[in-house]
Amino acid sequence: MAKIITFGEVMLRLAPHGYYRLIQTDDLEATYGGAEANVAVSLANYGEDVAFVTKLPENLIGQAAVNSLRRYGVDTGKIVRGGERVGIYYMEKGASQRGSLVIYDRKYSAMQQAQSGDFDWKKIFRGAKWFHFTGITPALSPEVAKICLEACKAAKANKMMVSCDLNYRGKLWTKDAAKATMTKLLKYVDVVIANEDDCADVLGIKAANSDTTKGALDEKGYESVAKQVQKAFKLKMVAITLRTSISASDNKWAAMVYDGKQCYHSKEYLIHITDRVGGGDSFGAGLIYGLVHKFDAQKTLEFAVAASCLKQTIEGDYNQVSLDEVLKLAGGNASGRISR
Amino acid sequence: MAKIITFGEVMLRLAPHGYYRLIQTDDLEATYGGAEANVAVSLANYGEDVAFVTKLPENLIGQAAVNSLRRYGVDTGKIVRGGERVGIYYMEKGASQRGSLVIYDRKYSAMQQAQSGDFDWKKIFRGAKWFHFTGITPALSPEVAKICLEACKAAKANKMMVSCDLNYRGKLWTKDAAKATMTKLLKYVDVVIANEDDCADVLGIKAANSDTTKGALDEKGYESVAKQVQKAFKLKMVAITLRTSISASDNKWAAMVYDGKQCYHSKEYLIHITDRVGGGDSFGAGLIYGLVHKFDAQKTLEFAVAASCLKQTIEGDYNQVSLDEVLKLAGGNASGRISR
Amino acid sequence: MAKIITFGEVMLRLAPHGYYRLIQTDDLEATYGGAEANVAVSLANYGEDVAFVTKLPENLIGQAAVNSLRRYGVDTGKIVRGGERVGIYYMEKGASQRGSLVIYDRKYSAMQQAQSGDFDWKKIFRGAKWFHFTGITPALSPEVAKICLEACKAAKANKMMVSCDLNYRGKLWTKDAAKATMTKLLKYVDVVIANEDDCADVLGIKAANSDTTKGALDEKGYESVAKQVQKAFKLKMVAITLRTSISASDNKWAAMVYDGKQCYHSKEYLIHITDRVGGGDSFGAGLIYGLVHKFDAQKTLEFAVAASCLKQTIEGDYNQVSLDEVLKLAGGNASGRISR
Amino acid sequence: MAKIITFGEVMLRLAPHGYYRLIQTDDLEATYGGAEANVAVSLANYGEDVAFVTKLPENLIGQAAVNSLRRYGVDTGKIVRGGERVGIYYMEKGASQRGSLVIYDRKYSAMQQAQSGDFDWKKIFRGAKWFHFTGITPALSPEVAKICLEACKAAKANKMMVSCDLNYRGKLWTKDAAKATMTKLLKYVDVVIANEDDCADVLGIKAANSDTTKGALDEKGYESVAKQVQKAFKLKMVAITLRTSISASDNKWAAMVYDGKQCYHSKEYLIHITDRVGGGDSFGAGLIYGLVHKFDAQKTLEFAVAASCLKQTIEGDYNQVSLDEVLKLAGGNASGRISR
Amino acid sequence: MAKIITFGEVMLRLAPHGYYRLIQTDDLEATYGGAEANVAVSLANYGEDVAFVTKLPENLIGQAAVNSLRRYGVDTGKIVRGGERVGIYYMEKGASQRGSLVIYDRKYSAMQQAQSGDFDWKKIFRGAKWFHFTGITPALSPEVAKICLEACKAAKANKMMVSCDLNYRGKLWTKDAAKATMTKLLKYVDVVIANEDDCADVLGIKAANSDTTKGALDEKGYESVAKQVQKAFKLKMVAITLRTSISASDNKWAAMVYDGKQCYHSKEYLIHITDRVGGGDSFGAGLIYGLVHKFDAQKTLEFAVAASCLKQTIEGDYNQVSLDEVLKLAGGNASGRISR
Amino acid sequence: MAKIITFGEVMLRLAPHGYYRLIQTDDLEATYGGAEANVAVSLANYGEDVAFVTKLPENLIGQAAVNSLRRYGVDTGKIVRGGERVGIYYMEKGASQRGSLVIYDRKYSAMQQAQSGDFDWKKIFRGAKWFHFTGITPALSPEVAKICLEACKAAKANKMMVSCDLNYRGKLWTKDAAKATMTKLLKYVDVVIANEDDCADVLGIKAANSDTTKGALDEKGYESVAKQVQKAFKLKMVAITLRTSISASDNKWAAMVYDGKQCYHSKEYLIHITDRVGGGDSFGAGLIYGLVHKFDAQKTLEFAVAASCLKQTIEGDYNQVSLDEVLKLAGGNASGRISR
Repeated sequence: MAKIITFGEVMLRLAPHGYYRLIQTDDLEATYGGAEANVAVSLANYGEDVAFVTKLPENLIGQAAVNSLRRYGVDTGKIVRGGERVGIYYMEKGASQRGSLVIYDRKYSAMQQAQSGDFDWKKIFRGAKWFHFTGITPALSPEVAKICLEACKAAKANKMMVSCDLNYRGKLWTKDAAKATMTKLLKYVDVVIANEDDCADVLGIKAANSDTTKGALDEKGYESVAKQVQKAFKLKMVAITLRTSISASDNKWAAMVYDGKQCYHSKEYLIHITDRVGGGDSFGAGLIYGLVHKFDAQKTLEFAVAASCLKQTIEGDYNQVSLDEVLKLAGGNASGRISR
Repeated sequence: MAKIITFGEVMLRLAPHGYYRLIQTDDLEATYGGAEANVAVSLANYGEDVAFVTKLPENLIGQAAVNSLRRYGVDTGKIVRGGERVGIYYMEKGASQRGSLVIYDRKYSAMQQAQSGDFDWKKIFRGAKWFHFTGITPALSPEVAKICLEACKAAKANKMMVSCDLNYRGKLWTKDAAKATMTKLLKYVDVVIANEDDCADVLGIKAANSDTTKGALDEKGYESVAKQVQKAFKLKMVAITLRTSISASDNKWAAMVYDGKQCYHSKEYLIHITDRVGGGDSFGAGLIYGLVHKFDAQKTLEFAVAASCLKQTIEGDYNQVSLDEVLKLAGGNASGRISR
Repeated sequence: MAKIITFGEVMLRLAPHGYYRLIQTDDLEATYGGAEANVAVSLANYGEDVAFVTKLPENLIGQAAVNSLRRYGVDTGKIVRGGERVGIYYMEKGASQRGSLVIYDRKYSAMQQAQSGDFDWKKIFRGAKWFHFTGITPALSPEVAKICLEACKAAKANKMMVSCDLNYRGKLWTKDAAKATMTKLLKYVDVVIANEDDCADVLGIKAANSDTTKGALDEKGYESVAKQVQKAFKLKMVAITLRTSISASDNKWAAMVYDGKQCYHSKEYLIHITDRVGGGDSFGAGLIYGLVHKFDAQKTLEFAVAASCLKQTIEGDYNQVSLDEVLKLAGGNASGRISR
Repeated sequence: MAKIITFGEVMLRLAPHGYYRLIQTDDLEATYGGAEANVAVSLANYGEDVAFVTKLPENLIGQAAVNSLRRYGVDTGKIVRGGERVGIYYMEKGASQRGSLVIYDRKYSAMQQAQSGDFDWKKIFRGAKWFHFTGITPALSPEVAKICLEACKAAKANKMMVSCDLNYRGKLWTKDAAKATMTKLLKYVDVVIANEDDCADVLGIKAANSDTTKGALDEKGYESVAKQVQKAFKLKMVAITLRTSISASDNKWAAMVYDGKQCYHSKEYLIHITDRVGGGDSFGAGLIYGLVHKFDAQKTLEFAVAASCLKQTIEGDYNQVSLDEVLKLAGGNASGRISR
Repeated sequence: MAKIITFGEVMLRLAPHGYYRLIQTDDLEATYGGAEANVAVSLANYGEDVAFVTKLPENLIGQAAVNSLRRYGVDTGKIVRGGERVGIYYMEKGASQRGSLVIYDRKYSAMQQAQSGDFDWKKIFRGAKWFHFTGITPALSPEVAKICLEACKAAKANKMMVSCDLNYRGKLWTKDAAKATMTKLLKYVDVVIANEDDCADVLGIKAANSDTTKGALDEKGYESVAKQVQKAFKLKMVAITLRTSISASDNKWAAMVYDGKQCYHSKEYLIHITDRVGGGDSFGAGLIYGLVHKFDAQKTLEFAVAASCLKQTIEGDYNQVSLDEVLKLAGGNASGRISR
Repeated sequence: MAKIITFGEVMLRLAPHGYYRLIQTDDLEATYGGAEANVAVSLANYGEDVAFVTKLPENLIGQAAVNSLRRYGVDTGKIVRGGERVGIYYMEKGASQRGSLVIYDRKYSAMQQAQSGDFDWKKIFRGAKWFHFTGITPALSPEVAKICLEACKAAKANKMMVSCDLNYRGKLWTKDAAKATMTKLLKYVDVVIANEDDCADVLGIKAANSDTTKGALDEKGYESVAKQVQKAFKLKMVAITLRTSISASDNKWAAMVYDGKQCYHSKEYLIHITDRVGGGDSFGAGLIYGLVHKFDAQKTLEFAVAASCLKQTIEGDYNQVSLDEVLKLAGGNASGRISR
């Protein structure tokens, strides 16, 4: 009986080692990841009782995906087995002026072709307190969007908290489609997480003077965005991550939250990046952890930002850091000295 | 203007290194292969002017597939670019009593979704003398089967030789569907290549007393099969490869041909296997090479068997052996001594 | 509430890749293994509900050991955390006339220094039906031997079946010490598993005419050994594995069981070895599986031998084969052909 | 019939992985590279029809060099086969204050021992519009310098554009020898490419106040250098790359061109370096691309600088970037964000 | 007859490749290192005649440790063989805000359990001029501390110079224990090396206003520390390394020495770190080299700082740089340009 | 002062991993080897005091070659440094019917261009008892043949034993040239080692009925060959290794010696081969070891054959086995069982 449930797709991630390009190498690192799976692993690493729900085929690749999750302590007992294929994403790590590259090969995956009847939410949610999904899940197909809605309704019926990371993916759906669907889902959501662009892309709510391709962000402008979003959906909390991309190798990273009363701003980290994929997911997991453990808003925010800063020093989608490591960084020790 | 044209699908082949299983490893070898692509690479390695025709998406994975072919000298200028994904097959190498394992993830590939209008066979065949495909290509979809038929007709109109490896794949279509389609195509074919089971599976023509799962083959029985097949389709040649599987590590390997007049039997090799995938394809390429170069039937057969024996000592789908190496083995030097 | 409980030590296994020696390489494969952990993973791979009990330190190496087990579905919730170090064994794979080499660095491990109070057997055994350990566990220290005795008594009090693989390790204790301790423990045991030497080494019960260093075994002689052992400890079953070492690369492998009434002999496999470590453990797991599922004696034996034959084609200590794969081989399909 | 022809040596490049030193490792990455081959691959990656001309031995190493080029679409049909060995360079990647290290083992290579009669320039240049070589080629031997001269004359006779990267290599010849030979060759050249030091080293034409080992460059001083060089050889264009070496890990990178009328300066990039070898070659290829496609001088320059900035984020000698990627960076998007 | 003798423990260092965490990988890099062994390798790389003294078990792991030293020219003929195990340390490289992580598994090692009678210092020191150890050696056990004292006395009796790096390791002993032991040993020492914290941790002598976890160091404050230490033990030289940890990826690095008369400050390097472990040891080796070769104080200091700057660009514990490379950097060439 | 001196060339050996071909891979294993260096390493591994003499350039590759030897305890203090390059050999491991492939790139190496004045044999041989070289050394150049002759004369003047492995290499010289030179050198030789073909190739002395490419050897015929050779050069011992090449994967291996009085035949091993290169060298080293330690002829022979059998289970040129391991196998324990 897991306390926290996340729902989405976990994909096989195929990536060249180091900074090689896909056309240069005969060797691919094969790990697994996906927004909601990443959140689940983060929470399991902090010692939370968390289950990830998805659909995976009954072959060795599906099994390897399951194994990647239970290896890190995620409850995989609620995963539905069936369908034909595990979705794939090819990932090339960028460096300096060369951006990272993602090629999706996720269509027709078991999860993308899941049917409403595959998931018995009442049973899945037994004993659970928190439900998390992201905007990627309903983008997979209209049927999966419908499943998301059923899950949200069941979660609220079960008096659970619901969080959603907007996570707009232009390769999966249009902004209009996203808006139509997400507007419906957000009625059941308590906590919204977004990056600088998501609120504009998904909800049409914009911050003034922000052009993220120029790497110039007006942090203040996000306060108004957060307030608009909170108001529109009567949310308990809106959190926005703020990335300033100096280059593919070096990013600034911060975040803010608005709790309906006040805006809080985190400290900003200058990160020399190992792997930035999953940065937002690890922020979401940190936020959920803080809220579940009744941290105050500032501490919750600093915990989430520190967690996601550390993620970007970790290879792969999953955030492999412990509670102690996050608390230590959130507490201010960023010198990176060795203890021995 | 390539002399030989092969047509089919080339897939990304994802395989653990050595004898690891797919659920044990985070590292996959990413190479490319597919029956007709394998034939093309073999022929290019012998110095033939050969083009491979397929459809591949316009992304880095599609490009890597193209690069894998032109690296070894195959003309890729006739490949159509478009569609969504490169087909994949996961491959686990067996050892001793544990058989090799193949998981297909090739549905919805660019090639599987190719349309008749994608290929202008008249243009493709300009200056060509030989067309080769296998039973896998028409199994991809009814539309691709139709394209195959168009290609066969165009080839005959262009006075080309046509060869076909029956290559039955039970994961792609039923025996009935195979029979219906292949019977139509074989009308245009001059040379048929098959393994021990293909003639029964695809054409319903059986050798007495053969149960390949028991590893016991009655070589004599295949003479009657070859004769039946030759007669049914008025073929110039029928070739049958004969594998005796002692274990996943050790196989016996031989072949026979029937040229409408006489049956020829090759010597038999005891192979300590490095990678058996592509063994049949390298046999087909050897057969084509011998016929193109007017070797007599026995020499053609020995060349093809030696080539495919060597293939099974090579990693990956593509047969990386030179003309000299095949001729040397076919000529009887199998001692494996070092020259220095 | 796991149905089957195994108890022992899991070690970090450090091995050069392929056939390199420890003094040739800067790269070690770091996996985990140990007799009872190996049994647990095998059973989990067959879908059994199994927990592994041990003591591991609270650092990343201890955590990696836990992760290696839960990755494959073993319940690690009963593992005690504490102590200083994870035991290590260095492993060099042999080839042809060069035997494999094991160097133990397992002294002072958390498990070796475990205390009786660390384990609450009544709680651990709640709902369990089967308890398995091997002769390695009591060899770790007199205190651990005492814990084993407590576990055995608790298991019998809980009406569980108890199985024990004699697994004599000359590097851990003397034959006399082994005999004294094991004789006490075997009073609580229902099923004994042994290799050709164990009965003589541990219990002083010998087969005539067997000198295992010469690779010559008199299978008939083992019938009398099995009968003597069964009688001495009033066992439900005695199982003896029979390895004929042609070389480090090729072994013959078979087994026999005696159920108090009759001796059963398995078929013999000629194995081209990938990794022989864990062969005996996978036999034990197969035997337990067969007994739990009420297979008859012959089928139980064939299942266990097929499982352990397959293990020796698998890299690492853990047997990564599925129920279907074992059943298929036990059912007689050993040709190693690809299904595609 | 390739449009662009480059001529020089391609070497086997043996490099430790990552930042290991040659005396630390048993594993070398084996790729291929050389100034003019690098230019050819860049141009092929942009879709240009380009052939690389060289001499390579008829063994597997020579073949692997050929394959490395045709893999990326370079026409290798004009490569002469013969001679004894493939030249080698050992390459150790530097980091921070430790500079990269190159050890040449290129003497006696097939190309260094090429004879005038090996190359039929009239035939090679049939249908070609552009010829490119660098100062490394004539430095290989007096005979190869003579071949260069023959090529230049044939190119001009064929009304082709000729470009030359001065590329002074102190390990191959003296400054005096370079000056004597290059002065003769430059009479046939239309476009000269140089780095900060080349004009001084090869032609004795200096910029004031520049000591490149101090990392301090006076960009303005290069304008006078460019003008002197243009005037001396009546060139259509002189291009100078400007590297400021903060450390082996971080460089500033810019360039300027002078077209006989005006000096143009590019934007400057701060590059976190993956592999700087081939930076100048990718600049040259970018320049040729811009000139062939009639970009104006500023756009040509920005394209070439962006291309060579990206190269330094790529492993190996060959610049593995697409036309789109260069255009995007030259167009101003340097944020390195992921598109997904 | 080695001129310089260093004494301590060499451990097996197990580290994930690149920036992977210990719980993410199945592949560990297995090299060897330890403070005094690192000093010996550095000196051997500069061409010094140096022997490393320790105790190592007579198995393949002990042999691999010996081999790692003699590979780089260290005299291993004085190493005592015996004992049970080679000490281990697990090492995870940090990145950006994530610090490096060291897990010791060195207890019960052959060296930690060495006995006074194992070492015949009179014989070991025959012909030697310099003895070096660090604070780690006496921290291993009271018996080893006693051996250290014997060695110090024998060295002084042999009129050798004695140097000691304080190297406080909180995981090995308390500050009080360190102070009691080190105070006794320092009576025999001529040259003390310390980092920012060591003087306070080991000797209770503090610099004002320094909190190293905040990354803020007052360089001036160290002058008083150095003077106090020099005075307390009548030393010929006190050297203090000064690290400013911007992040785990980027550090500032400098040092100072006090020779009883004057303080000297080195230039400061900004290092993009490859592997910082062994930085202090390579500083010590550089200092010894300068003093042995009668460099003046400033040149000795700059040599030592340049050497240790370069070390931090090298993978592994051992500093793989040549005399020429250190002299070049100490002489001011830090541009990291390639020579070719 | 080494007791045994071997003299020849050590090369960089570049080999694909596993069974990949040179044209398939971007990764080469870089180790070192050469007939006489291999003998030296074998003897050092048995605890002998042995020096290897050669000439190597003063760069990192030359240093890495030195390091590879001293790593395993060979005295490298007599190696002359100078010249331009380290010789290279590319090595592709064969499998089954595909033979191993060697490509030499050793011309112009420092050793091949060594001059008579480079070696002061009187000094080198001070205190030495045994000198060993092979037919490869004089084949490098007439000058090196002259140096060999000088060494042989100096060795005899110093009352040393001299052994020579004929080691005919058709890629280095003709049979006539070999005969002319070797006949002169063998006057100073006491022990000759040869394989099945060497005596015929080098000395024109043939065994009846042996065609090694057919894998059929008449062991008896070699007795007459050995006797003829012994008589011709008044040798103390002639040893002939006898390889029956079943395939590249499986060989039979035996040897015989004739001591002027009697022929001794060894047992024959069936070897499943890991790497056969260096098999003959490890036989030579075993023979020298036996003779130095006054084993009787049969024991010497069995030791040498067991050593070289084990070598063929070891990766790389150098035989990484201990004295104990050879003695154990020579003593009859070939079961390859694990000791634990």
